[in-house]
This record gives sequence, structure tokens and C-alpha cells, in this order.
Amino acid sequence: MFTEQELLEQVAKLDGWKLKDGRLLVRKYSFNEFMKGIAFVGEVAAISEAFDHHPRITIDYKTVTLELTTKEEEGVTSLDIRQAYGLNEAYERTR
Amino acid sequence: MFTEQELLEQVAKLDGWKLKDGRLLVRKYSFNEFMKGIAFVGEVAAISEAFDHHPRITIDYKTVTLELTTKEEEGVTSLDIRQAYGLNEAYERTR
Repeated sequence: MFTEQELLEQVAKLDGWKLKDGRLLVRKYSFNEFMKGIAFVGEVAAISEAFDHHPRITIDYKTVTLELTTKEEEGVTSLDIRQAYGLNEAYERTR
Repeated sequence: MFTEQELLEQVAKLDGWKLKDGRLLVRKYSFNEFMKGIAFVGEVAAISEAFDHHPRITIDYKTVTLELTTKEEEGVTSLDIRQAYGLNEAYERTR
């Protein structure tokens, strides 16, 4: 696990992600069409299967919110951070 | 808009859907694989575009939760009820 300081530094480098309640990594992604958000969710699903790690995904019309955490560790781990980078790359490809 | 009594009768006939806070129609759909839930979300998206009415969709690993409401009417309308039937049919096809 990261120390609190290490975690804050890691999150500061991650475009768009915020720490929630100290144990959840959250990002809202916006799209100009509903179906682009759905296509992004398809990418998120493929990445989640590859990592065998599944964020909570919420689709509110043209906004997709992802929440990442590692339940076994009750907090954010390097796995969540690595996956967040991959999810940001997928957003740049599909937005 | 339905009267409260009419709405309760409509919801009672809808398999799996519940009324939340008197103004949201909610159903949780379970799948035996994460990717089956994702395939279902693709169907939900297509139906939502056809109805031009977009439920909030939450994917929690193998569980997909849908919330339907008509914002303009601040409550559940016949549009939500009709769409809920279509979503249940999609579930039966993709589960």
C-alpha cells in the first residue's frame, strides 16, 4: 500500500482523477454523444478484463463516471493507479 | 402522469422493477459473467436511443442497475413503464 503522501503524489499526476473518502479513485469522463460514452464503456470493460479488476461504472447520459479501488486492501493501490492510466488512454482514443 | 395508485399497479406488473422515493423506477439485473452484463448495457443503450430516453446505468462487476425517470415530469411516466418492458425483454435475450 502507498502511504497517504505517496498516494496524493500519484493521484496528482493522473489527469482528471480525484481521491474520494481517501479510498476511492474517481473520474468523470464527458462525451458529446451518448453512444461515444457507451463505446468508451466497451473499452473500459476490455481493460477491466485484462487487469481482472473492475471499476464501478456509472453512465449518466453523456457522462461516464469510473470508481476504482482495491477491496482486498480497502484502498487505492498501484494496480488502481496503473489501470487509471490505461483508462485515460482509452478515453483519448474514443472521445 | 399516473395517480399514485395507478403507478403502484403498473410497477407491480413489471418483473423485477421497484419504485424508489416515489419517483424513480429501479431494477438490478444479475449476470454470471461481467461481459454478459456489458453486452446487456449495449442493448440498453440501443433501446435508450430508440426511445430517446436514457436511464442511469450502473455496472458493479456482474450486476447492472438501471434507474428510469422522466425529469420533465419529475416522476415515472408511461414512457418509463414502456421502456422498462423493453429492457426486461432485452435481459431475457442477453442473460
